[in-house]
Amino acid sequence: MVIRTAAKVDLNKPPEEQTCLHNRWHPDIPFISRIAPNEVVKIECLDWTGGQIKNNDSAEDIRNVDLTKIHYLTGPFEIGTAEPGDILVVEIQDVQPFDEQPWGFTGVFDRHNGGGFLDEIYPHPAKAIWDFEGIFASSRHIPHVRFPGLIHPGILGCAPSAEILAEWNRREGEVVQSKVHELNRDVAQLPQPQNVHAGQANISHPDLKAKVGREGARTIPGRPENGGNCDIKNLSRGSKVFLPVHVPGAGFSVGDLHFSEGDGEISFCGAIEMAGIITLKMSVMKNGMADLGLKSPIYIPGPVEPHYGPGRYLTFEGFSVDEHGKQHYMDATVAYRQTVLQCIQYLKRFGYDDYQIYLLLSCAPIQGHIAGIVDIPNACTTLGLPMDIFDFDISPTGPATKMDMGACAK
Amino acid sequence: MVIRTAAKVDLNKPPEEQTCLHNRWHPDIPFISRIAPNEVVKIECLDWTGGQIKNNDSAEDIRNVDLTKIHYLTGPFEIGTAEPGDILVVEIQDVQPFDEQPWGFTGVFDRHNGGGFLDEIYPHPAKAIWDFEGIFASSRHIPHVRFPGLIHPGILGCAPSAEILAEWNRREGEVVQSKVHELNRDVAQLPQPQNVHAGQANISHPDLKAKVGREGARTIPGRPENGGNCDIKNLSRGSKVFLPVHVPGAGFSVGDLHFSEGDGEISFCGAIEMAGIITLKMSVMKNGMADLGLKSPIYIPGPVEPHYGPGRYLTFEGFSVDEHGKQHYMDATVAYRQTVLQCIQYLKRFGYDDYQIYLLLSCAPIQGHIAGIVDIPNACTTLGLPMDIFDFDISPTGPATKMDMGACAK
Amino acid sequence: MVIRTAAKVDLNKPPEEQTCLHNRWHPDIPFISRIAPNEVVKIECLDWTGGQIKNNDSAEDIRNVDLTKIHYLTGPFEIGTAEPGDILVVEIQDVQPFDEQPWGFTGVFDRHNGGGFLDEIYPHPAKAIWDFEGIFASSRHIPHVRFPGLIHPGILGCAPSAEILAEWNRREGEVVQSKVHELNRDVAQLPQPQNVHAGQANISHPDLKAKVGREGARTIPGRPENGGNCDIKNLSRGSKVFLPVHVPGAGFSVGDLHFSEGDGEISFCGAIEMAGIITLKMSVMKNGMADLGLKSPIYIPGPVEPHYGPGRYLTFEGFSVDEHGKQHYMDATVAYRQTVLQCIQYLKRFGYDDYQIYLLLSCAPIQGHIAGIVDIPNACTTLGLPMDIFDFDISPTGPATKMDMGACAK
Amino acid sequence: MVIRTAAKVDLNKPPEEQTCLHNRWHPDIPFISRIAPNEVVKIECLDWTGGQIKNNDSAEDIRNVDLTKIHYLTGPFEIGTAEPGDILVVEIQDVQPFDEQPWGFTGVFDRHNGGGFLDEIYPHPAKAIWDFEGIFASSRHIPHVRFPGLIHPGILGCAPSAEILAEWNRREGEVVQSKVHELNRDVAQLPQPQNVHAGQANISHPDLKAKVGREGARTIPGRPENGGNCDIKNLSRGSKVFLPVHVPGAGFSVGDLHFSEGDGEISFCGAIEMAGIITLKMSVMKNGMADLGLKSPIYIPGPVEPHYGPGRYLTFEGFSVDEHGKQHYMDATVAYRQTVLQCIQYLKRFGYDDYQIYLLLSCAPIQGHIAGIVDIPNACTTLGLPMDIFDFDISPTGPATKMDMGACAK
Repeated sequence: MVIRTAAKVDLNKPPEEQTCLHNRWHPDIPFISRIAPNEVVKIECLDWTGGQIKNNDSAEDIRNVDLTKIHYLTGPFEIGTAEPGDILVVEIQDVQPFDEQPWGFTGVFDRHNGGGFLDEIYPHPAKAIWDFEGIFASSRHIPHVRFPGLIHPGILGCAPSAEILAEWNRREGEVVQSKVHELNRDVAQLPQPQNVHAGQANISHPDLKAKVGREGARTIPGRPENGGNCDIKNLSRGSKVFLPVHVPGAGFSVGDLHFSEGDGEISFCGAIEMAGIITLKMSVMKNGMADLGLKSPIYIPGPVEPHYGPGRYLTFEGFSVDEHGKQHYMDATVAYRQTVLQCIQYLKRFGYDDYQIYLLLSCAPIQGHIAGIVDIPNACTTLGLPMDIFDFDISPTGPATKMDMGACAK
Repeated sequence: MVIRTAAKVDLNKPPEEQTCLHNRWHPDIPFISRIAPNEVVKIECLDWTGGQIKNNDSAEDIRNVDLTKIHYLTGPFEIGTAEPGDILVVEIQDVQPFDEQPWGFTGVFDRHNGGGFLDEIYPHPAKAIWDFEGIFASSRHIPHVRFPGLIHPGILGCAPSAEILAEWNRREGEVVQSKVHELNRDVAQLPQPQNVHAGQANISHPDLKAKVGREGARTIPGRPENGGNCDIKNLSRGSKVFLPVHVPGAGFSVGDLHFSEGDGEISFCGAIEMAGIITLKMSVMKNGMADLGLKSPIYIPGPVEPHYGPGRYLTFEGFSVDEHGKQHYMDATVAYRQTVLQCIQYLKRFGYDDYQIYLLLSCAPIQGHIAGIVDIPNACTTLGLPMDIFDFDISPTGPATKMDMGACAK
Repeated sequence: MVIRTAAKVDLNKPPEEQTCLHNRWHPDIPFISRIAPNEVVKIECLDWTGGQIKNNDSAEDIRNVDLTKIHYLTGPFEIGTAEPGDILVVEIQDVQPFDEQPWGFTGVFDRHNGGGFLDEIYPHPAKAIWDFEGIFASSRHIPHVRFPGLIHPGILGCAPSAEILAEWNRREGEVVQSKVHELNRDVAQLPQPQNVHAGQANISHPDLKAKVGREGARTIPGRPENGGNCDIKNLSRGSKVFLPVHVPGAGFSVGDLHFSEGDGEISFCGAIEMAGIITLKMSVMKNGMADLGLKSPIYIPGPVEPHYGPGRYLTFEGFSVDEHGKQHYMDATVAYRQTVLQCIQYLKRFGYDDYQIYLLLSCAPIQGHIAGIVDIPNACTTLGLPMDIFDFDISPTGPATKMDMGACAK
Repeated sequence: MVIRTAAKVDLNKPPEEQTCLHNRWHPDIPFISRIAPNEVVKIECLDWTGGQIKNNDSAEDIRNVDLTKIHYLTGPFEIGTAEPGDILVVEIQDVQPFDEQPWGFTGVFDRHNGGGFLDEIYPHPAKAIWDFEGIFASSRHIPHVRFPGLIHPGILGCAPSAEILAEWNRREGEVVQSKVHELNRDVAQLPQPQNVHAGQANISHPDLKAKVGREGARTIPGRPENGGNCDIKNLSRGSKVFLPVHVPGAGFSVGDLHFSEGDGEISFCGAIEMAGIITLKMSVMKNGMADLGLKSPIYIPGPVEPHYGPGRYLTFEGFSVDEHGKQHYMDATVAYRQTVLQCIQYLKRFGYDDYQIYLLLSCAPIQGHIAGIVDIPNACTTLGLPMDIFDFDISPTGPATKMDMGACAK
């Protein structure tokens, strides 16, 4: 009657020593165990940095984070009789932090070690710690704000086939070649043997570990073939997600739990990152990819999202003209950046500093919409900020009174 | 007691002969009348093509649409004592179609005459006519679908100052120069004297009309300084929008009414376009731009949007890998296109053809979200399709049964 | 293409002279016209007092209201091939006030002429006039409040058969006999020839008019067999209601339009009462009563109700112990009265007087719930008051500041 | 950092042996411990029968339930400096079942041992066991139904003063005297020494235990002065409830956790009853009763209720005419009973038996509204049934197909 825990993690042990974890996508990583279709299981997960970030008031750990040692996923699990071409239907029945670790963190990475959506403007590291009080999170680093979590896994997906893996490496290699000099920044993370974690292979199969290091896809991006690090804030409790299966047994992995996230997860380490437990029920839809016409995952959210009423969202508009006055052509990414910057300007009037707001918009349940994507040359996006997460009135009624807002960790 | 109609249009008269209309943004277009602060007024508007599109089963009118004769806005109105630096607060109290014209249209433009978000894949013109039954719209061209309108103006904003207008022309001229050859398509619409409508100046001030033709900004794009054609589907009844004022008297104009629209308005002529009446109340917040820290409009929606419950949205995921397998770097525009294409593939299984779905996703209340915008190299967007707008079950339960779905106008 | 108006009323003519109206339920009232199944029609309706209440600042008209001259319904309509045992499916596609009369009223009747839910405590007449600004209503008589209408018909239903009519008269006669002395107040309105309006029969068939006067059921109560004056605030735009048919042709009537109402419509003349136009589409489900197992109407609301988010409702609890300290046994009516009184006490702290609040709670979109109905001896009900209808903060944060709230009409 | 558990219960020990529990309201029951204002604490609670009901397929335990051994509440707690006249502000931050007991039950009591809202029609005992899968509950006894819990405490409140206790005993004694013969059933539960549990006094102060037995108010009813067993389904996670304080230290107690409940909790043992853990934060508003004008509790729900969209509720109407055709005068209790009976008839068409539906409507998140409470002689109530809790289509489209629905425990 008690729900089985299909994999346990140890918060006090280095993740690289835990064989139920891995940090690459590769078809050859050994299954850690089998889950029967329609069995309800709990799966424990580390936070995505594998415990590198501490509950304190310094951003040193953020500055020095080792990004080769992240995204330790729990799995891969073999799921019943799943075959390539099937769909793995995953119902997210619950996500909870560990009782013994009722807190999470949001970080802004250093521009030269990870960066984020606004790193040209905000290049320095920063951090906020969030304390969980039941369904709510609040932070000593960002006062006067509190909200319930729309709790979810940042990453879930099935293992790629060898063919899909090769395709990933091809196309991401190409974008690195074509863009890295133009943009003068990392544009993709290619396979990287350093600190590879290939699960049980780490111990028993050094050759396989080396192979996973050479070929294994990094976990940073979501990808159309398996979803992966899609970072969809609404993929929360009660959601049912339909994942393409590419290898026999599916090779399902999950991790990177978020207590809450804003659309875009803009600061990169932007959700309220946490370790915890996810409760899942999985079933297999035979031949589902063809029957549903799917190449990428789809999902149906559950009926339990926090809801504020549409009239409680202060909504900012942004267009694809950048902060230097340059017109971009139909670029929704530029437009969303402008939308976020408008919101930061607005909130600064109350006394918050830029980094506090950057952190807040990364993890609070903001709604980022594509508004117009056809009116040349301007894409338009919007950002809906729920006014009820503040304990004072932020509505646009006139000049603001600056309050003492303390500071985030820097 | 009866609400005053501040401007009337004539559906049976060419728009260029109606002096309460104009089709450029320019500070010198004469005010058509004055509206007192806090007065409630009705303003009549043409559809954005000025009546070029007819209620029939042919897409000839779409194919031949004259895009120099569009976006006839009603105004500009002088609003009380508005001065540059103020904010014009506009409450949208209602939007209704005309009783005598209870229908609207959605079009896919020819790739060589307007185009749209998917014109490389769907280059041909198409059209759907929507009949209004009270709050609902349905179409003989897209059967088995019906939904209530989230009715709104596609365009509203204040006139630009001369300085802002010059800036628009500069930066949009630059993007044309830098991008038009690379992309081999129109990337912006620069000032165009042909078919310019400068309101009352058309008759009384031919010199001014010529000036507006030479300098006046086209109405196609929304722009950060005044909003304009922002095409935000949620800017509906009950919304309060805060518009920057750039000229004495504000010079407020409105038009391009939409019975409904999907996020992105993807087919360009993509909302359910209609003529109708908007009811507004406006007030002036002195020094509002500085007091609120605003450069671009913001708004607060009303509490009356249709709502289906989160669990009623079938949600598609898309990433910035295009349909040719090319990896783009963090491009939310590419990601949203992929998201839409996933949805089209899904719905085709029920018997709809591609153009029917393209039209439908343009105008039905789909939710387009920025999901992840930092996980290099993939931006991730989602598209939430409300399942309850269909009168059959579209949920992902297995193979679909094709139905006879007729055809849209082509 | 323009929607047909199936019945027009004249706001400037006494209702008793308009043959498209009637004010009794009786199977023999002649049909005024036929509506085809699936035809969309508009039907005009008077306000429920037939125009007795005026837009002024005196409650004299409320005090002197003639309650034998009310509830003029538009109809009865013959609907296609409806037969007894069928279900008439009515979709409410829109409800709108007349353009020329953009206002409504809420009244508290004199205890000796109509009364209401709280007439033992508030025995005097009072009135508030509500001005409509698009979807919103506000009142000079109850300042600092504004809300969008959840607009709906108070009354709709099909004509009773002779057998059902006889049953109504039997059982309501019995309750008068058994209760009127005990309660010392009107407990039901039995047939009343005075001011009977039997539609076209008034002119052409004096005998029939007399019969309708003798036998015809009054329109005040809703009744299980046909719904009638059910006064359900959520039976609004987009709703689909399933009405039992008792006579050939259905004999559908509608009236008593409400711009808004609170659960309970407590002051009796308690909604925002208005004249206006309802847009309907009707179809017939043959043998529907048996197939659906229905004796009473059911309905499915539309997806367009105003919504504030659950966290925006200040919620009062009430139990079946009356204001004199008397314990009632499981009496939800007593409990709801106590719940309302709690809310009145709470709001008085801000400066409103009792009658203003009584009027407000009658017509604002408050949520009245049965909470517990089994915990002997106390029924428990709740009243959810949407805080966002006030333009100041009513949340329970401490002592209130009294404001100048003017007065309602008395 | 880990949240303190302020009181632990033992699921394997008789509740009468656990001194952190009590089952009467009395000011003299000793505090079990102190909770500091603004401290976040977890409090463990038994299910309301103290473990009498087992996870099996027999209703014998329901039939034989000992109703003198119920409602073991955890507490009373001393809260900071609370004084009579203050308000205790309680934020419900979470409610969870125990990991080791992921199930609950809903029961219909025998008419002669507890009864319920429909016991004249359904006099026999019945039971359904609900299994919890994360946020969802489903039952082997009521197939094809599943829903997320709107989890909440059935009982919370502060201790009565001696004066209030005396008043309770007076007025409930009077209703017993005046009604018990007329109604021929229990109308209230007066003080009862049998199986009294006075917390720590049970062991250390036999005189006090005897006094509590003689005077202590039973916990069945909610009461206006302290809330108590209000059984409000929306008093769920994120709610903030304002409780009047009547004794120094407040004497706060909580218990009777529900995984889910329908408005009315109609079968009496009607929620999904469970043992579990509630997380609370409490603060004291000095002089709050006078400052807020409160005699009874009020609350503000959190923003996290399940929501289905208004268009997903099939809504039944009921009036105060009973099933024997007798007209009652404005009796919302009778009306709600009829509303429930309409719904039962409707659902039986699909193959469920009456008791299964009676159980389901007790615990599923149905919405019970007061619709009209002034249209003499008929009160009208509605019951909104969320269609999405069923895995088949229950919408009113025609004759139903009976399915094999198994049986509940009997």
